Amino acid sequence: MGKKDPPVPASGRTSAGSRDRSAPNSMWGGRFTGAPDALMEGINASIGFDKALHAQDIAGSRAHAEMLAAAGILPAEDAAAICDGLDRIAAEIAAGEFDFRTELEDIHMNIEARLGELIGGAAGRLHTARSRNDQVATDLRLWLRDAIDGCDAALAALQSTLIDKAEAHADWVMPGFTHLQAAQPVTVGHHMLAYVEMFGRDRGRLADARKRLNESPLGAGALAGTSFAIDREATASALGFDRPTANSLDSVSDRDFVLEFLAAATICAGHLSRLGEELVIWSSAQFGFARLSDAFSTGSSMMPQKRNPDAAELIRGKSGRILGAFVTVFTVMKGLPLAYSKDMQEDKEPVFDAAETLAVCLQVAAAMVADLSFDRERLSAAAGAGNTVATDLADWLVREGGVPFRESHAIAGRAVALAEAKGCGLGDLPLEDLRTIDDRITEGVFDVLTVDRSVTSRTSHGGTAPDNVRAQAAAARERFL
Amino acid sequence: MGKKDPPVPASGRTSAGSRDRSAPNSMWGGRFTGAPDALMEGINASIGFDKALHAQDIAGSRAHAEMLAAAGILPAEDAAAICDGLDRIAAEIAAGEFDFRTELEDIHMNIEARLGELIGGAAGRLHTARSRNDQVATDLRLWLRDAIDGCDAALAALQSTLIDKAEAHADWVMPGFTHLQAAQPVTVGHHMLAYVEMFGRDRGRLADARKRLNESPLGAGALAGTSFAIDREATASALGFDRPTANSLDSVSDRDFVLEFLAAATICAGHLSRLGEELVIWSSAQFGFARLSDAFSTGSSMMPQKRNPDAAELIRGKSGRILGAFVTVFTVMKGLPLAYSKDMQEDKEPVFDAAETLAVCLQVAAAMVADLSFDRERLSAAAGAGNTVATDLADWLVREGGVPFRESHAIAGRAVALAEAKGCGLGDLPLEDLRTIDDRITEGVFDVLTVDRSVTSRTSHGGTAPDNVRAQAAAARERFL
Amino acid sequence: MGKKDPPVPASGRTSAGSRDRSAPNSMWGGRFTGAPDALMEGINASIGFDKALHAQDIAGSRAHAEMLAAAGILPAEDAAAICDGLDRIAAEIAAGEFDFRTELEDIHMNIEARLGELIGGAAGRLHTARSRNDQVATDLRLWLRDAIDGCDAALAALQSTLIDKAEAHADWVMPGFTHLQAAQPVTVGHHMLAYVEMFGRDRGRLADARKRLNESPLGAGALAGTSFAIDREATASALGFDRPTANSLDSVSDRDFVLEFLAAATICAGHLSRLGEELVIWSSAQFGFARLSDAFSTGSSMMPQKRNPDAAELIRGKSGRILGAFVTVFTVMKGLPLAYSKDMQEDKEPVFDAAETLAVCLQVAAAMVADLSFDRERLSAAAGAGNTVATDLADWLVREGGVPFRESHAIAGRAVALAEAKGCGLGDLPLEDLRTIDDRITEGVFDVLTVDRSVTSRTSHGGTAPDNVRAQAAAARERFL
Amino acid sequence: MGKKDPPVPASGRTSAGSRDRSAPNSMWGGRFTGAPDALMEGINASIGFDKALHAQDIAGSRAHAEMLAAAGILPAEDAAAICDGLDRIAAEIAAGEFDFRTELEDIHMNIEARLGELIGGAAGRLHTARSRNDQVATDLRLWLRDAIDGCDAALAALQSTLIDKAEAHADWVMPGFTHLQAAQPVTVGHHMLAYVEMFGRDRGRLADARKRLNESPLGAGALAGTSFAIDREATASALGFDRPTANSLDSVSDRDFVLEFLAAATICAGHLSRLGEELVIWSSAQFGFARLSDAFSTGSSMMPQKRNPDAAELIRGKSGRILGAFVTVFTVMKGLPLAYSKDMQEDKEPVFDAAETLAVCLQVAAAMVADLSFDRERLSAAAGAGNTVATDLADWLVREGGVPFRESHAIAGRAVALAEAKGCGLGDLPLEDLRTIDDRITEGVFDVLTVDRSVTSRTSHGGTAPDNVRAQAAAARERFL
Repeated sequence: MGKKDPPVPASGRTSAGSRDRSAPNSMWGGRFTGAPDALMEGINASIGFDKALHAQDIAGSRAHAEMLAAAGILPAEDAAAICDGLDRIAAEIAAGEFDFRTELEDIHMNIEARLGELIGGAAGRLHTARSRNDQVATDLRLWLRDAIDGCDAALAALQSTLIDKAEAHADWVMPGFTHLQAAQPVTVGHHMLAYVEMFGRDRGRLADARKRLNESPLGAGALAGTSFAIDREATASALGFDRPTANSLDSVSDRDFVLEFLAAATICAGHLSRLGEELVIWSSAQFGFARLSDAFSTGSSMMPQKRNPDAAELIRGKSGRILGAFVTVFTVMKGLPLAYSKDMQEDKEPVFDAAETLAVCLQVAAAMVADLSFDRERLSAAAGAGNTVATDLADWLVREGGVPFRESHAIAGRAVALAEAKGCGLGDLPLEDLRTIDDRITEGVFDVLTVDRSVTSRTSHGGTAPDNVRAQAAAARERFL
Repeated sequence: MGKKDPPVPASGRTSAGSRDRSAPNSMWGGRFTGAPDALMEGINASIGFDKALHAQDIAGSRAHAEMLAAAGILPAEDAAAICDGLDRIAAEIAAGEFDFRTELEDIHMNIEARLGELIGGAAGRLHTARSRNDQVATDLRLWLRDAIDGCDAALAALQSTLIDKAEAHADWVMPGFTHLQAAQPVTVGHHMLAYVEMFGRDRGRLADARKRLNESPLGAGALAGTSFAIDREATASALGFDRPTANSLDSVSDRDFVLEFLAAATICAGHLSRLGEELVIWSSAQFGFARLSDAFSTGSSMMPQKRNPDAAELIRGKSGRILGAFVTVFTVMKGLPLAYSKDMQEDKEPVFDAAETLAVCLQVAAAMVADLSFDRERLSAAAGAGNTVATDLADWLVREGGVPFRESHAIAGRAVALAEAKGCGLGDLPLEDLRTIDDRITEGVFDVLTVDRSVTSRTSHGGTAPDNVRAQAAAARERFL
Repeated sequence: MGKKDPPVPASGRTSAGSRDRSAPNSMWGGRFTGAPDALMEGINASIGFDKALHAQDIAGSRAHAEMLAAAGILPAEDAAAICDGLDRIAAEIAAGEFDFRTELEDIHMNIEARLGELIGGAAGRLHTARSRNDQVATDLRLWLRDAIDGCDAALAALQSTLIDKAEAHADWVMPGFTHLQAAQPVTVGHHMLAYVEMFGRDRGRLADARKRLNESPLGAGALAGTSFAIDREATASALGFDRPTANSLDSVSDRDFVLEFLAAATICAGHLSRLGEELVIWSSAQFGFARLSDAFSTGSSMMPQKRNPDAAELIRGKSGRILGAFVTVFTVMKGLPLAYSKDMQEDKEPVFDAAETLAVCLQVAAAMVADLSFDRERLSAAAGAGNTVATDLADWLVREGGVPFRESHAIAGRAVALAEAKGCGLGDLPLEDLRTIDDRITEGVFDVLTVDRSVTSRTSHGGTAPDNVRAQAAAARERFL
Repeated sequence: MGKKDPPVPASGRTSAGSRDRSAPNSMWGGRFTGAPDALMEGINASIGFDKALHAQDIAGSRAHAEMLAAAGILPAEDAAAICDGLDRIAAEIAAGEFDFRTELEDIHMNIEARLGELIGGAAGRLHTARSRNDQVATDLRLWLRDAIDGCDAALAALQSTLIDKAEAHADWVMPGFTHLQAAQPVTVGHHMLAYVEMFGRDRGRLADARKRLNESPLGAGALAGTSFAIDREATASALGFDRPTANSLDSVSDRDFVLEFLAAATICAGHLSRLGEELVIWSSAQFGFARLSDAFSTGSSMMPQKRNPDAAELIRGKSGRILGAFVTVFTVMKGLPLAYSKDMQEDKEPVFDAAETLAVCLQVAAAMVADLSFDRERLSAAAGAGNTVATDLADWLVREGGVPFRESHAIAGRAVALAEAKGCGLGDLPLEDLRTIDDRITEGVFDVLTVDRSVTSRTSHGGTAPDNVRAQAAAARERFL
């Protein structure tokens, strides 16, 4: 997504850059000697983005060369020269001194060509028993494995922050919403831990994706395998893969690992979008439940009341981008015959962008959660408004009066209506009033008609009671960190 | 997707059905007493599709009732009456005698209402310590678990068919394509096994999704848990779940399990789309590689040459539908605050349709693969056309002549050019001609310049050599069946 | 989306229904004589959904028969018999007496077969000079044209309701939000009219889509046209099309009209999702800006404060479904060679469902908007909170004091900070206080520092001033209704 | 999509770049003074991509300044200074000398800040009566209008090339396929013109999108309009807009124009994907229908037979990317309350990328079509194989023998079966053989049983007859160029 000027063919602009096109329309007129080459080069070259794979490409080449030498396919001194040359290339790239060249098409050819310049003839032996098809599959798996590890670390950091927040607010009450209407009181800690569960599942999905991708396609060749007596176990092991892939055709045709990562990333981004939405709503003046500091708000010198929760909105919105990447790559792959087709080159930009986007969003989310301060009074007041303890009355009638739930539910409804009519809360009604509705109600009922008693009573497994929340937080720390 | 007439509001049609609307436009004129109710009922009721959950809903209620009785929350005789009533309802549904009623909104209320008719007051005690929010989450997880098991069985059957086919064609040569251009010879068996790998990964994803969904939300209540001393371990165990979910808010907010299944289903459908594409191409007169029998073709009494591969096209196309379901549910969930929102009712139709579609496509794919007959002669001829053994020449030079690969690659290119110029294949060139190109070439080279020798030589792990293929097939049977 | 039981192949369930499958696994074992037919029939037949096209199919056949007769290709008496038979079939369908048969595959064959039963041999002449390929394209265009007209009518009704609401609340002030933070006061009427613009653009898109689809593919034949001297202008005209399509290959390959409708429907559904979100937020206790009546809320006998805005949530959520339909059909069509492929059968269910969903959502939206009652006091109070008139102070300084805007913006910022420090609003600060900040401020400034004056002053084209709103409403009525 | 290293938070990498992060985990530990700012800046700043809007931003500011001066809101000399300064900035950007600064967040602030440096105080008056909300909406509409014009020109060029090709091959016969099975003979010209229709509809959609976007949001302010007596007609006119937008709230909330463009671009990309698929299939050795020159193939020095149609594959695959952009932006916008939310910043990168991608693909497609050479012999042979003239026999029986089509269809079927049995084509059967099937067949039938006669006979409107094709090509030139 690097180019931004409006694409106006009439002015001769192409992605291949700045060549002179003094007669721009001539290309449509049938006389475009040369121009098509440029067009073709522009759409075909991938070095603009696949240079991101430089470290993986070098690691793969090194493992390949060492295996070839060990297998007696490559003289040891050639392997040493190759590894040395690769080191020098890595250093050049790190120093920003490497000249990536579009006419060399991709990262593989750029590095091999430079290797030839550096070490001469031995460079020509590196590509023995491999092909760019297995090479790029190897590179991309390595890159994505790192990206997964990065996202996992960011998720763990976010969970850690949420657990801290949960423990600090284990007994702060707030309304639990359904349909954005207060339903029952919950605790802030409990709410934070709901996200810990979500992000825990995300980590599980990433771990499963990592496990599945962690097989080495190196040695699959163009598609059929090779007649050289290579040792695919050795290269797999050197690159940290669990094993070589089982079928060479599949190895170069497969982009499941990209799709599975993007699917997991999309679901994770969906969680971030829900968190973002809640932060935006909680930060509104009308809710006023929580406040982000200046660091995560865009203030305004004119309207100081405005603390625009920009970062929260961005993590909400960027979920679209990650879903878009999944849709992109799936649509690219849909209906492709085996084995490699050039369409598959379209896998990289979306996955690079999605992984980067997800990692940044996770970091921002963790920083925002850490930054968040809740307004205990507003939360508490909101938790009690609207007779959110009506369920507690109904449950009390079941438990203490043996009333069937459907009946107790109706009784509680009438009690609420009476409270509403009197302009008070359920707990403020005199006992005699409650007993006009149902005479099984006794003084004991008032023990359950407060927000604090309500949350304290919810001690079922996974429930919102403060002690539960503290135990859940400790358990979460155990499970996830 | 049940309603099909073009939606013409002017004629008063709504999804709520057949109410009289003698003055259809009046509803937009501000005097629509009653009509809005009907509109609302139409958009709100889910019984039209969630009745699919009847078996799961009954199983969940039974487990809940038995747990309540064991925990002393419900009298044992009430639990017995409830279970008995549920049995009768299950029988009524099985017999097609159950009257699903839209005004009762959903499957949960339909069953509870009928239970009340059948057993009277005790029915009113069933809903103690639960809510429709945890109930529907439980039902849907149970349904999806069964669907996953069904898809897994269908995938295993498809793999089994592919492995059979691979073994039967372990040494049939065919062109291995990249860019739909013949690249190197492979074997039909090897090609079949590439799909076995794909579908194996699909099964892995489904198994992981199943593992993650197999936690019981039952007992999470509306969102906060409950003050009753319920035993969530017991209901989890009774329903075959591994454990109860850890956080009640998350339990009713979460639809990850739907998304994760849909993502896995989408990726699997992508594999089917590739298989479908290949079957379509192979069945064309121009390729003529394979033939589907009448059972899987749409013939034409007029054009007997036409054996339209309709089923292959359908499994190619239906991948779009499954991707669409993923996009649908993700977009529904995007940005929803916790906990339950009504939007989430939109999860069911897409997942029901996608699971059904995938299962049918997998069955059809297995039947088509079993039905497929290959044309050995055409495959073999195509495998040899275009000097697909050029790589073998290059590799021979490396192996036997110690030539660096980049150089041998160039030599092979010149040899091919010579063969093309002479209108023959590489293996048909006299040795002297080859030696004019490079005198390191000796008589021994002809050992590698046939299609059969080419495939036989590809013995690297995962390679296409017939013995490899047989071993891979056996290993696949071990790993997957 | 009609089938809902979990798809468990092991139990022999297929979409083809209830055949006995006492040995379910036998089908994968190579002995499935017959069974594949059933599978194939199940995936292949479209009558389950394309029967929705019955009216269009009959209309198309009638137009075709009459044209054939006029062109002398069909005897007049045969044409008369055909039209008579089609009338009888239409009556049978209307009466629910038509027997749709799966083995006849689709709506076209079902109707033609019945026509043969009713009128005998002449029925065999109907299919002269046409094919199912052009027939289904014609039917679907006709269906979609009606659906577009239905959606357009529903959109007009929704706009009408919004304009009514706008006029009734032309001078009710409310906060105008950015980032869900109050920015500047606006009027409720102005806010309603923003949606009128959105839905107006939707109507424009639908009208353009209708214009583009309104060409007749009838007579394109299988793909090549026909050697009969047919009159495509005549059938086009009879069916209300503007003209015949220009290229017969394109006519049977094209589903742009489906995609264009789905794209327009998706964008429209996006507007509904924004309206739904606002209704949900406004209905929350914390905002309390507006209230939906019982008819559009799900109340609760237990929690009477809960007025769950279910319908608003559903129109918010169902946007996902319509986007999903677009993605589905696009992915189906992606990469299909010309002309007709069976994949294209997958166009119908998504477009049927999306059109139905959109029409229902539009009706529900109109009814909800009509039903909505605003809380003028809360809106007004919220509009004034947070010094939303700060921009008015800055603008006043520019206008009256000649202060550059960037400077006046800073001055206003300081004034707001002072007001905040004093715990009052900008308009409550004494003049002397304001003059300590900038002495160009005079008594006249207080004329602009109220919410009402703020909105009244915004008289620029499209601005929020009440008189503007009234004029915009009148203009909108003119433009759209 | 510019950043490519795997995102590894542990190493402190953020999109904000290269700041030192010696204690990377400290950010999650609660002591991240400063760090959050950097994170926030990284996610928040848009200058990295919205600098693409520089020309549009400058044009908008110039129009605004001139209008303010004309309206007496800005002194004429200030307006002159502003315009002069903007010219200098434009020159600096053109010369690559402008320093885009991340801390100034976006293109608007970068330009305004530089303007202040260049002209001093008058720069502070430019932002009178506008806001970044209406400014960015204006910029993006202007950018997209140019992009649409560019795509339209590229589409016209592509159509022109296709029409040329059609005319040059008006009477070259080829098989017309359904289900990738030869159905009836068509002409190459006819096939080319099918794409001309598709791209013509694309141009229609782009034109409609352009018409709808061509309204000026400038002057909508932050959301409420302004109290300054601005002349929105004047700025609209100066910027080439048809009129100002009607509602200021909608003006800053709306991104329909992005979505509508992306939808049209997606549908257009779908057409390119079909063309790409056909080019890939036609270029296969098995089909051999057409050949791309070296300029559009990736050759291989080793396998000269390989002419990988990379560019065709890329235009097939890149459709996924454009669909992904539509899904991205729709998901971003879904459920956003009015008016501006920061999520909307996510609109730009997808639309920039999609517009660029589409323009490049269209250019490449035109160049490939121009480059394409067909193999007349193979096409002709394939057109006749498989008794594709069977329909002609059936039609002849209807026309000459008065046989009902359903009956003639059956007769033709029997004739084809006989020809197949005899191993010859339909036209090679002796008359007596044909008469054994049906004695209404006479000598005249042989007039229709050749491929050339078949295509020549298809003279119905839009049919494939060569003269039709020539007339259609001429008409297309008239309609589209």
